[in-house]
Amino acid sequence: MIRFASRMDQLKGSEIRELLKLTAKPEIISFAGGLPAPELFPVKEMEEAAKAVMEEAGQAAMQYSSTEGFLRLREQIAERMNAKYNIKTDPDHILMTSGSQQGLDYSGRVFLDKDDIVLLESPSYLGAINAFKTNEPRFIEVPTDEGGMIMEELEKILAKEDRVKMIYVIPDFQNPTGRTWSLDRRHKFMEIINKYEVPVIEDNPYGELRFEGEYLPALKSLDTKGLVVFLGTFSKILAPGYRLGWVCADDEILDKYNCMAQAAALQASTISQMETAKWIDMFDLDAHVEKIKKVYGKRRTLMIETMKAEFPPEVTYTEPDGGLFLWVVLPEYIDAAEMALDCLKENVAYVPGGSFFPNGGNKNTFRMNYSCMTEEKIVEGVKRLAKVIKATIK
Amino acid sequence: MIRFASRMDQLKGSEIRELLKLTAKPEIISFAGGLPAPELFPVKEMEEAAKAVMEEAGQAAMQYSSTEGFLRLREQIAERMNAKYNIKTDPDHILMTSGSQQGLDYSGRVFLDKDDIVLLESPSYLGAINAFKTNEPRFIEVPTDEGGMIMEELEKILAKEDRVKMIYVIPDFQNPTGRTWSLDRRHKFMEIINKYEVPVIEDNPYGELRFEGEYLPALKSLDTKGLVVFLGTFSKILAPGYRLGWVCADDEILDKYNCMAQAAALQASTISQMETAKWIDMFDLDAHVEKIKKVYGKRRTLMIETMKAEFPPEVTYTEPDGGLFLWVVLPEYIDAAEMALDCLKENVAYVPGGSFFPNGGNKNTFRMNYSCMTEEKIVEGVKRLAKVIKATIK
Repeated sequence: MIRFASRMDQLKGSEIRELLKLTAKPEIISFAGGLPAPELFPVKEMEEAAKAVMEEAGQAAMQYSSTEGFLRLREQIAERMNAKYNIKTDPDHILMTSGSQQGLDYSGRVFLDKDDIVLLESPSYLGAINAFKTNEPRFIEVPTDEGGMIMEELEKILAKEDRVKMIYVIPDFQNPTGRTWSLDRRHKFMEIINKYEVPVIEDNPYGELRFEGEYLPALKSLDTKGLVVFLGTFSKILAPGYRLGWVCADDEILDKYNCMAQAAALQASTISQMETAKWIDMFDLDAHVEKIKKVYGKRRTLMIETMKAEFPPEVTYTEPDGGLFLWVVLPEYIDAAEMALDCLKENVAYVPGGSFFPNGGNKNTFRMNYSCMTEEKIVEGVKRLAKVIKATIK
Repeated sequence: MIRFASRMDQLKGSEIRELLKLTAKPEIISFAGGLPAPELFPVKEMEEAAKAVMEEAGQAAMQYSSTEGFLRLREQIAERMNAKYNIKTDPDHILMTSGSQQGLDYSGRVFLDKDDIVLLESPSYLGAINAFKTNEPRFIEVPTDEGGMIMEELEKILAKEDRVKMIYVIPDFQNPTGRTWSLDRRHKFMEIINKYEVPVIEDNPYGELRFEGEYLPALKSLDTKGLVVFLGTFSKILAPGYRLGWVCADDEILDKYNCMAQAAALQASTISQMETAKWIDMFDLDAHVEKIKKVYGKRRTLMIETMKAEFPPEVTYTEPDGGLFLWVVLPEYIDAAEMALDCLKENVAYVPGGSFFPNGGNKNTFRMNYSCMTEEKIVEGVKRLAKVIKATIK
């Protein structure tokens, strides 16, 4: 009998990815994934960038490169973090990863021993929860409201628990709720973590995708003690197929991430990095992000308008100012995982919310993605969903 | 004070990668890395393949894809494993990874709890040792000789130790020694592991690069109980910059790897996978491997001939039939790590052997790579090395 590591008992296949397989049929209108809209990918331009890389430096692009990552790309990222988030950094404080998921994985492994505590928003991103689970930690969910994590609750936990090794947060257009922390909470949060000196993983895949309202400072831009680890990614502002994310952190912490990266994967894809850097040099990432924002913003508005018209009043939902997701709360007696099966019969899909709560419960919730369906399908899909909800409500 | 996970105490930066930074200066003749020869990369052809992918399926290439990996590529790999290694498998039993290093990382995490035992050849690949260390296991080194792992020693350990959770081996052109297990040892090995039912990680990055002699069956081809996990990679037969490796295993084990992959990284790069698959469909991988073998074989012969002429008789070394590396043993009183500094002064580099022994010792050894230096540099580099060795020998 083969004996596996005990961590494997906790890892089941991700509910999202299993569901995505079911929803791959063309007749299904899926709000389940977190896919960016493929019709916005700059395919033609990327073909040009790839050609330029192969002609100018093909051998280097196909060879091993450094663990830290391709220098030109790290320069571009450092500049962008400065320009977009007011984070004063430089290429020496950036580590490239194979997608942001790998940054989440490294985060757990750098900080967490078995039974250590990780704090996170309730609910939180299920991909992060799964990554952290490989270290068999305990999760404490910090209550949240419309303004994000509730700081009084956070402080209560930190005052009581000694084994909190890290805090994982998504302050901008959170996955799964779409919520954004208020400015006041951000400052309060930094006060608290400076007092307790707990490392923070600030996951920021969606921050640039604000449709309206003012940009709020990244936690990392307020970090005076080197406690915040910022995770960024090209998946939502350019394309996910290259698997490129990054970690930005101060020396002490980044050294550990580098050691972990050497042990776990050596480096991110050289060719992905060089093609992406070349594209950024040849074309206009800012203009591209503007285009994405316009499309997603319109889809978000349409989804919410259709929900307002179609959903019964017992159902509530968030109205995000950016990002890819919104969050639906059903009456407590409805199990969204069960209802998902009825929805599949109607050829519409979402992600049941239970998996976003590491300690369980909250089965009456689900996550909706509005970035990758056409406007027509958004209207039709929400109508189908409303029909099933109405039939399920007592 | 920031508290890191206890595993971080064991992870230092890889000696190889740190050394590679020192040896990046153009005046240095480096036998330290494990780089394939970049002048053999099919740059022009890969440019064509990339163009074809972007024109035929650009949106899909830039999008997320499945954890298992791009189907066409898994088909090609399954066919190849059948043809080259007589391993009867299919695409459903292949999982794509971001380089073989990620397969090593997943292996450790799937099988090893803290203080579990992993068995490996003495010496063994330092990248694997580092990956496994993230799980804080104990290492037991199984003695080896010219024919590979010594089976009597392996059985003695298995009879005594209950916590052996996996055995890590490189039966073909091992890294670092260049040794290949005899046919007899392979059969004996399978008998033993079938008796004890211990999972085996068969790491096979170099198997196709045989310069002479007969191909010997892969352990996976002899596996009747689903105990062997085969790790393959495109890094040495095509190019490492795409970061593409694969895991081939039977259902029970592969399911666990899939769960780990979902948690740790979601998937390997879509674009890397599609471009590689397209290149294999458009061009001739077999012919390409023949070309590589011819060049590396010649370099190996030249390195050994030069060593024979230049090295003093107190120094011994392996004479591999394939792969990228050979292994040098100095008189016991010489510390190869110290001598490496003298060599750097002479602008020649190797990897000191100590790091390939997880339990220490054996400082009088080093690893030489012959794949990525020109013939001229091989001769000149070995001469420089011989000069330092002669000056160091008492």
